[in-house]
Amino acid sequence: MKTFEEILKIIDIQINKIQWQREPKGLYAPIDYVLSLGGKRLRPALTLMAYNLFADNILPAIYPAIGVEIFHNFTLLHDDIMDKAEVRRGKPTVHKKWNENTAILSGDVMQIIAYQYISQTPPEHLKEVLDIFSKTAEEICRGQQLDMDFESRQNVSTEEYLEMIKLKTAVLLGCAIKIGAIIGNAQNADCQAMYDFGINLGLAFQLKDDWLDVWGNEQTFGKKIGGDILCNKKTYLLINALQLAKGQIGQELNFLLNTDNILPEDKIRCVIEIFNSLKIKELTEEKINLYYKKSLEHLDNVKVDSSKKEYLQLLAKELLQRNK
Amino acid sequence: MKTFEEILKIIDIQINKIQWQREPKGLYAPIDYVLSLGGKRLRPALTLMAYNLFADNILPAIYPAIGVEIFHNFTLLHDDIMDKAEVRRGKPTVHKKWNENTAILSGDVMQIIAYQYISQTPPEHLKEVLDIFSKTAEEICRGQQLDMDFESRQNVSTEEYLEMIKLKTAVLLGCAIKIGAIIGNAQNADCQAMYDFGINLGLAFQLKDDWLDVWGNEQTFGKKIGGDILCNKKTYLLINALQLAKGQIGQELNFLLNTDNILPEDKIRCVIEIFNSLKIKELTEEKINLYYKKSLEHLDNVKVDSSKKEYLQLLAKELLQRNK
Repeated sequence: MKTFEEILKIIDIQINKIQWQREPKGLYAPIDYVLSLGGKRLRPALTLMAYNLFADNILPAIYPAIGVEIFHNFTLLHDDIMDKAEVRRGKPTVHKKWNENTAILSGDVMQIIAYQYISQTPPEHLKEVLDIFSKTAEEICRGQQLDMDFESRQNVSTEEYLEMIKLKTAVLLGCAIKIGAIIGNAQNADCQAMYDFGINLGLAFQLKDDWLDVWGNEQTFGKKIGGDILCNKKTYLLINALQLAKGQIGQELNFLLNTDNILPEDKIRCVIEIFNSLKIKELTEEKINLYYKKSLEHLDNVKVDSSKKEYLQLLAKELLQRNK
Repeated sequence: MKTFEEILKIIDIQINKIQWQREPKGLYAPIDYVLSLGGKRLRPALTLMAYNLFADNILPAIYPAIGVEIFHNFTLLHDDIMDKAEVRRGKPTVHKKWNENTAILSGDVMQIIAYQYISQTPPEHLKEVLDIFSKTAEEICRGQQLDMDFESRQNVSTEEYLEMIKLKTAVLLGCAIKIGAIIGNAQNADCQAMYDFGINLGLAFQLKDDWLDVWGNEQTFGKKIGGDILCNKKTYLLINALQLAKGQIGQELNFLLNTDNILPEDKIRCVIEIFNSLKIKELTEEKINLYYKKSLEHLDNVKVDSSKKEYLQLLAKELLQRNK
């Protein structure tokens, strides 16, 4: 059994091995740039750790794991164009550093390269892995579309929000894990339990992201607190606050969301005060814990020796206690 | 053996069968729109006609053929954003009718759906078909990048131009045909000969496109004559003219390319006069015929009864005699 840290080393070696000095430079240099910015490498790690529950020699799962990571980075690249984001992992986004056309086309080729890595799944599992990967990729696009649709909508329910983050974030964690299980020759029921572990972990993970935007530590979180608040992003926090805020607090919250006549730091401070008065922090933590517990139950149901599950349990715990 | 027209009917039935009334509408409606605009359906037809050389029941090749067509339409969608094209097949492009974000994301999901169709290749050929498809898809992105790079370059050689159109256009014809041959259980040498038939046909096809921009019939061509001339597009015609034009004609051509002080119809007329004086029409027709002949030689080398090749020969002839 390999730890998360050991798995990460293997992934980094593999990613660093890829030669991006290909022609035309304008197409491949942005891919090199995006992949070298790092990130948690959570998804390929989950593929290999899931595989490692069922089999030892992780070689057959490495290329598909890298495929999942390249696909994830492709979605960030295109999402950043659509969201007009200027910074990613502390560096200029591709469409800022180069231009939009470059970001579109390099993203397109990353998606193809992701499929090239996925296609290196051992033949006996190729069709099944391709199918879950494509299904997931399509769901992620649906999640991004819903996210954009929500921006121009007045009311978004918590159920709709949870469905959106499931599609946009959780399914790729579930897929990464399931691919590992499939290649590790796990039984169907175990593949499904592993997928459900990933879905619930992903939901908790994204809610923690929302939580960190407000109660995170600016130094360790790596971005400014309150970014979501400033752009009125309909996070789990704001959606719940809008539902719970009545009377004067409700009026105040609506005023804060609609006024241009306030300093950014004041807006952030006032909205956080409302969140605190409505106990949004506790409510979000409860939901995170609910999904966290559900994820562990699904992992418990997987029919392998429980000692083998410790590294995955530890990783899940660390992900939800993270402050960045 | 099925004729081109019979094959087209089968393809249209299949494409019309696809249900695009899926949620979220903003993601799928543009795909429905793009695919309903029509187009020649040349690529899926080539897949099925190539298959039909080696086997009768075309069922196993239909979904991969549709995948190739969806991929082709995805490239048009994203290319139109990059080229800021406002019209495609006489209708507003997706990024004009909706917006750029919609065009990016709907294109992304089209690429995924293309892979879903390709993945329905019979299992015994799945890996081989996936590999040629992904290789080709990557080459098309490289072709698009080169095309964009050429816009800002002073000098582009005919060799560089031919390499660019090979990547941007010809390889997908080669790939469509090869996929049909592979699924039809053709021998490797025949798959390769079919691919080379497609590459040469594709080169001739794109040069004919350049030719039609100047000497096409406006009514049947469906777009205004001289569009490439107006935007100084480095086509095979212009690149050759720049190489051949000496002395006064050279100065005149350079003046026409660099002045803003001329009516569009005058610029088009004067450049065409220069093309005619340099015999660019004949030179381009020679090159088209060269590739056309090469394509037929490769088709001749395929080891199936020559009577079976008639429909493909006829299609190749019609493509290069087309006036639209």
